[in-house]
Amino acid sequence: MTADDLVSLRRDLHRKPEPAWREFYTTARIVEELESRVDLDELHVGPDAIAGDHRLAVPDDAELAAWYERARGAGTDEAILERLEGGYTGAVAVLEKGDGPTVGLRVDIDGLPREESDDADHLPAAEGFRSENDGAMHACGHDAHATIGIGVIERIAESEFSGTLKVFFQPAEEVIGGGKSMAKSEHVEDVDALLAVHIGLDHPTGEVVAGVDGFLAVSHLEATFTGEPAHAGGHPERGRNAVQAMATAVQNLYGIPRHSDGATRINAGVVEGGSAANIVPEEARIVAEVRGETTELMEYVRSNARQVLRSAAEMHGCDVEIEPGAEAPSATSDDELVSIVADVAARTDGVDSVLERDDLGGSEDATFLMEAVQENGGTACYVGVGTDHPGGHHTSTFDVDEPSIGYGVDVLAGSIERVGLENR
Amino acid sequence: MTADDLVSLRRDLHRKPEPAWREFYTTARIVEELESRVDLDELHVGPDAIAGDHRLAVPDDAELAAWYERARGAGTDEAILERLEGGYTGAVAVLEKGDGPTVGLRVDIDGLPREESDDADHLPAAEGFRSENDGAMHACGHDAHATIGIGVIERIAESEFSGTLKVFFQPAEEVIGGGKSMAKSEHVEDVDALLAVHIGLDHPTGEVVAGVDGFLAVSHLEATFTGEPAHAGGHPERGRNAVQAMATAVQNLYGIPRHSDGATRINAGVVEGGSAANIVPEEARIVAEVRGETTELMEYVRSNARQVLRSAAEMHGCDVEIEPGAEAPSATSDDELVSIVADVAARTDGVDSVLERDDLGGSEDATFLMEAVQENGGTACYVGVGTDHPGGHHTSTFDVDEPSIGYGVDVLAGSIERVGLENR
Amino acid sequence: MTADDLVSLRRDLHRKPEPAWREFYTTARIVEELESRVDLDELHVGPDAIAGDHRLAVPDDAELAAWYERARGAGTDEAILERLEGGYTGAVAVLEKGDGPTVGLRVDIDGLPREESDDADHLPAAEGFRSENDGAMHACGHDAHATIGIGVIERIAESEFSGTLKVFFQPAEEVIGGGKSMAKSEHVEDVDALLAVHIGLDHPTGEVVAGVDGFLAVSHLEATFTGEPAHAGGHPERGRNAVQAMATAVQNLYGIPRHSDGATRINAGVVEGGSAANIVPEEARIVAEVRGETTELMEYVRSNARQVLRSAAEMHGCDVEIEPGAEAPSATSDDELVSIVADVAARTDGVDSVLERDDLGGSEDATFLMEAVQENGGTACYVGVGTDHPGGHHTSTFDVDEPSIGYGVDVLAGSIERVGLENR
Amino acid sequence: MTADDLVSLRRDLHRKPEPAWREFYTTARIVEELESRVDLDELHVGPDAIAGDHRLAVPDDAELAAWYERARGAGTDEAILERLEGGYTGAVAVLEKGDGPTVGLRVDIDGLPREESDDADHLPAAEGFRSENDGAMHACGHDAHATIGIGVIERIAESEFSGTLKVFFQPAEEVIGGGKSMAKSEHVEDVDALLAVHIGLDHPTGEVVAGVDGFLAVSHLEATFTGEPAHAGGHPERGRNAVQAMATAVQNLYGIPRHSDGATRINAGVVEGGSAANIVPEEARIVAEVRGETTELMEYVRSNARQVLRSAAEMHGCDVEIEPGAEAPSATSDDELVSIVADVAARTDGVDSVLERDDLGGSEDATFLMEAVQENGGTACYVGVGTDHPGGHHTSTFDVDEPSIGYGVDVLAGSIERVGLENR
Repeated sequence: MTADDLVSLRRDLHRKPEPAWREFYTTARIVEELESRVDLDELHVGPDAIAGDHRLAVPDDAELAAWYERARGAGTDEAILERLEGGYTGAVAVLEKGDGPTVGLRVDIDGLPREESDDADHLPAAEGFRSENDGAMHACGHDAHATIGIGVIERIAESEFSGTLKVFFQPAEEVIGGGKSMAKSEHVEDVDALLAVHIGLDHPTGEVVAGVDGFLAVSHLEATFTGEPAHAGGHPERGRNAVQAMATAVQNLYGIPRHSDGATRINAGVVEGGSAANIVPEEARIVAEVRGETTELMEYVRSNARQVLRSAAEMHGCDVEIEPGAEAPSATSDDELVSIVADVAARTDGVDSVLERDDLGGSEDATFLMEAVQENGGTACYVGVGTDHPGGHHTSTFDVDEPSIGYGVDVLAGSIERVGLENR
Repeated sequence: MTADDLVSLRRDLHRKPEPAWREFYTTARIVEELESRVDLDELHVGPDAIAGDHRLAVPDDAELAAWYERARGAGTDEAILERLEGGYTGAVAVLEKGDGPTVGLRVDIDGLPREESDDADHLPAAEGFRSENDGAMHACGHDAHATIGIGVIERIAESEFSGTLKVFFQPAEEVIGGGKSMAKSEHVEDVDALLAVHIGLDHPTGEVVAGVDGFLAVSHLEATFTGEPAHAGGHPERGRNAVQAMATAVQNLYGIPRHSDGATRINAGVVEGGSAANIVPEEARIVAEVRGETTELMEYVRSNARQVLRSAAEMHGCDVEIEPGAEAPSATSDDELVSIVADVAARTDGVDSVLERDDLGGSEDATFLMEAVQENGGTACYVGVGTDHPGGHHTSTFDVDEPSIGYGVDVLAGSIERVGLENR
Repeated sequence: MTADDLVSLRRDLHRKPEPAWREFYTTARIVEELESRVDLDELHVGPDAIAGDHRLAVPDDAELAAWYERARGAGTDEAILERLEGGYTGAVAVLEKGDGPTVGLRVDIDGLPREESDDADHLPAAEGFRSENDGAMHACGHDAHATIGIGVIERIAESEFSGTLKVFFQPAEEVIGGGKSMAKSEHVEDVDALLAVHIGLDHPTGEVVAGVDGFLAVSHLEATFTGEPAHAGGHPERGRNAVQAMATAVQNLYGIPRHSDGATRINAGVVEGGSAANIVPEEARIVAEVRGETTELMEYVRSNARQVLRSAAEMHGCDVEIEPGAEAPSATSDDELVSIVADVAARTDGVDSVLERDDLGGSEDATFLMEAVQENGGTACYVGVGTDHPGGHHTSTFDVDEPSIGYGVDVLAGSIERVGLENR
Repeated sequence: MTADDLVSLRRDLHRKPEPAWREFYTTARIVEELESRVDLDELHVGPDAIAGDHRLAVPDDAELAAWYERARGAGTDEAILERLEGGYTGAVAVLEKGDGPTVGLRVDIDGLPREESDDADHLPAAEGFRSENDGAMHACGHDAHATIGIGVIERIAESEFSGTLKVFFQPAEEVIGGGKSMAKSEHVEDVDALLAVHIGLDHPTGEVVAGVDGFLAVSHLEATFTGEPAHAGGHPERGRNAVQAMATAVQNLYGIPRHSDGATRINAGVVEGGSAANIVPEEARIVAEVRGETTELMEYVRSNARQVLRSAAEMHGCDVEIEPGAEAPSATSDDELVSIVADVAARTDGVDSVLERDDLGGSEDATFLMEAVQENGGTACYVGVGTDHPGGHHTSTFDVDEPSIGYGVDVLAGSIERVGLENR
């Protein structure tokens, strides 16, 4: 792919951001692009690419159906679309090139449920490739990741690499919902070395991080408070106010004590409650996430959060149901791969700064795949590819500095070739 | 109308609850019923029935359009439907029967945005007339009110009454959005005596309240908090958390001090915020209402609420926009009409208990019409017609004990006749 | 007593405010003044004036001892002082003047635990009779009440009154701690008609209220939260933060829903917690009070408050002990006495406005005495004597407009004489 | 000193804990012990030991006077006591032993304002050396530190050490109030190598940490909210509730977002407010502390805390005054000294585990002295001496395993001798 091809593909994907498990257009577009560019040995799509039973945080049928229809309306290939029905998205592309190690590359492909900026300063708006899907946006660069995945497999197809390359186009990373289902699929079992990639992360264009570490273990939880409605003017005393319970919980969730063993996080990311101004709210909901530098720290926060939610409900005479949500472990890159990536990056045109290991401080469900490969005796490395991004990740003005996409392809393809050479 | 007719009409309306300004099916059904039963002198529909500029709390176009389509799908008469487009609902029916006073009867017709119970114990569910409109319900008896309005006008048409009767089928009471637009219409100007009616209010079947008082002045306000999003794991410190601001506001809104001059109310009836578990919420919203036994008391709460909202935003580095919403004044029934209604009720079969004046403790935008009539030198009286209701008003198991509908027709038609006689 | 005598006595008491059960100087001063002015038939002091077992809200021994010493240091008569040891304060003075009814007058004598203003604008500061007791103040006019009690008994001694007068100098009203112990004493048993008096209450000098009603039933409760301390920097996660529990409770106590049956109140009047900036607080305390227009309403708030306190503790892993505190019932004045007082007041020089019945909206433990007398078949009336007061009751700039003290003596002595005449 | 001497001295100090700037008995006892055991070259006491203008967090005169009297009552030497008047406590002992480096040893001597356990399981209670000062306790081991200081100087006096030893008996560490005043004294200026010591810190008896790091920068702040009082029953609406403001602030202080750059801390360690159950609280106070792994992180929390405090006040119509309190920087031990201490410790009888560097996660104002020495070109090392402690630091059951006191003397004296040898 030329630099123009990369930009053009990335922009097409950017226009059609699809949140977790709704990557219908995106998966189909990836499949079409792969088929038109590379002579693959295997291409597993949707239910064949993942272990469907291990999907986490799948939206309800109505939501899936609405996005399915939207994808159909956008002209998605019907044959591919049908294979994805019910929210079985993603793909695994396999290229066999003789003897040698099996190298995996994992890229994620989902968008975020947030509105994209339409400021004139925001390049996608200015250049006409802003999101066409209201309320959704590629605000974390997964459009670039998918593009890199395709660029790398084409490059390897044309290279001297000897071995097998598997590219994992993983759905639903943003809800930490897809990593586990991909890690549990048979495709990961024989991977000897796994690379995962993320663009940006506050590193500028031209900088590469060989070995992003410091992934926080993470867990989602959703609490639903149920009280009693009442007429807010006529009989306020008859209500059991689920919104008061929720607000009390939010205040105290953020007040869970810090821990001396390491970093913790808490976020009440989505809340809602009540039905009308004049009804004492009978229902309210919090979608929260907790994180910790270790699984124990995450569990410390989670256990405190449960207590806060239960007591807040009880305080206001409400019931609360707490549903466990998606989870992901922590993971650390292996020295061997870190060295290879660092060395290749240092020799790559356009890369002017290479860091060996740097902390992320966020979470990622690539850790499921890394853990699976490492448990099988393989190695894994999470690679950061810097990109100048005007707005922060997950904000409405996030954007990718497009030359960095090519640098990503260069570093990753180069690293894969090197792994092939060193394990011959 | 026979008792069976009343029940049948009420159940039909019950099946099709439509919230404020979306009473498309309901208005059309009322118009058809009126035209088939009574030889009216005038029938003003939709934009002709109300002063459209004075509508309050009108939903957005998409919401109006969705309900418009739903009404069309339910087989609503197209000719009538077209006249209501854009959320101009309601009707005023006029019957002229010779010399005499102009008497008004105001009934409200809208449903509530809440799910109806499907318990076997809930009569509408058991008998097959539960709401067919998901997420909407006649949980306050306005289906019975509309039915009473039609029953009364038919009864008066057949009576010896001399004078003019105007029945106001008012939309959007639940959001205190329709009363003002009806009060500002020309139709109210010449009304000498106005009756308004409400069923239930914790009074049992067979009890009538001549003169419901104690309406609380009310005002809605909607606050939108805007902060800054951030990745909740990666950079929590970069966020400006709108949900924290909202939760702080909710806690402190309910904590606004009580007032020694009389009753006050506050309710954060609807809240929502945030977009995803892993994003520090950048936006949140509270739809609240404040009430007071007098306008001054309502304003005391409102002014405190604004301060709470502003300071909560500031505390978390957020902006807040506070939009004033609908409002309604207080009102008191006139002795003259109270006596007439009490006397008529005491002589009505099925009525075994009559109260002269009782406090509501809620709000109502019938007060706009009462105020308008009283300011023009007329008199007004708000009548309560008891009904055994299993669940409280605004709850999912609210229901009307249907014989009370007939008692309502009897008491109101009897009172109207008496007003005619006494003002001959 | 001349007008100057009244002022001089009131100012002396004002200089020595003593909070509940610590009225050592005050009681002694009253006793001395009575003995020097009136030839009493009985004078019951301290433990003889009250039923000691029914004292509520008695401070601890150290606190009692400190004020006892302070009183001694101020030159209080040792013989009287000894009789008051252990916080048995107050007095009942009895004057028998032949046949006729037994009339009671109840005045309260305690000060408040608050600092008095030293502004030049504050008359007691300007004229040199500001509180000499640091941290205590007569901020509710009980100095004037005690003075009125003495003025009335002297006046009656000199009058034609026939019957028995008992003046109850009640301690500890501010903590609703003394009323019950006086009501349970034998002295109340034979009272046929009871008058109680309060100055001010936002009524101006020259206004008299015959029959202050609307006393709120009240109950105190004290919650002590116990958690676990921890080094706030080293191991914040090991703490169980009693101050977080307390703050959560305070926020939610004030948020207990208003009740449609009538007025309610809640106040977290005193809070404290923690021991040092760098220790996670292991203990915290709330002294709260709840009120209701009826006992049921008070109990509604109290029961909700208990739930809030318990859940707040549980939320933060703390224990909470909730100790019930003092309580007082509601009470209503009797028509018969209301008429007498109103009539006498209307004929009193200096009184230019008489209200029959007005709502207080606060609480008072005179209601214990009123209830006791009414249950014995007697009548009771609570009398308000207006006084221009610059600051509100309980604030640091509260003061009494001194001519109103004389009006109080006139109205009450006149009313007592009239009760004697009418019951001859 | 024999092991028995050490225990005996420590227990005597344990019986008489004195909080910051009130170490009257403690300082005098140290002076007496030094004079009786060692032939010192200089002994600077009280105002001569510290730079008095740089004292932080000094209590008010009444508090100082009360403890001064308590010390006098405990039989403190009058001559020494007089030199300490006004809260100028602490001492610097100087021993000159020929040519060689000037080595400093800093020990802190103050207790904490908390009640000591009287459980039979608590050794000081069982063995009769529990605190005799109500409400104060040596709950952090500074009694052992002072003892170690004396033990070390005696040991060095008897040793072959060549050089000068200065032992800094520092007051007021717990309020981070004394370190600065000692660092600013002239006595620190010529120190070439500084050792500071802390016992416990969750390390068991027999473990030594050469180089405790990870001191959090810390700052105290005290917020005083001022509102308006009102009668809580009569006119709640007239109040401006300072306790509501305080509770809102507490909830939101603990909710200040975590920071991705490193550890932060917040604690509302002492709160109080209000005057009586029936008065809307007009005043409330929070004594808080904020910490950060770096000064920038501490300032991030502090700046957020100020905003929370200001907005909470504004929300409730209160004013707030925020007084900056004591502060301390971060500091890191120097490799050179770390190696010496580790090596000496490894050869010390009773020490079976030596850690080179370990994080504290708390704060310490020894950092002022370390910083001063390092800025002058010297080196510094903070030494942890493990001790089995049943309760955590700052809790009521904290205690020191007494053999560890001797190990501390051995390790520190040994290290000082080695510094002398290596810098000869």
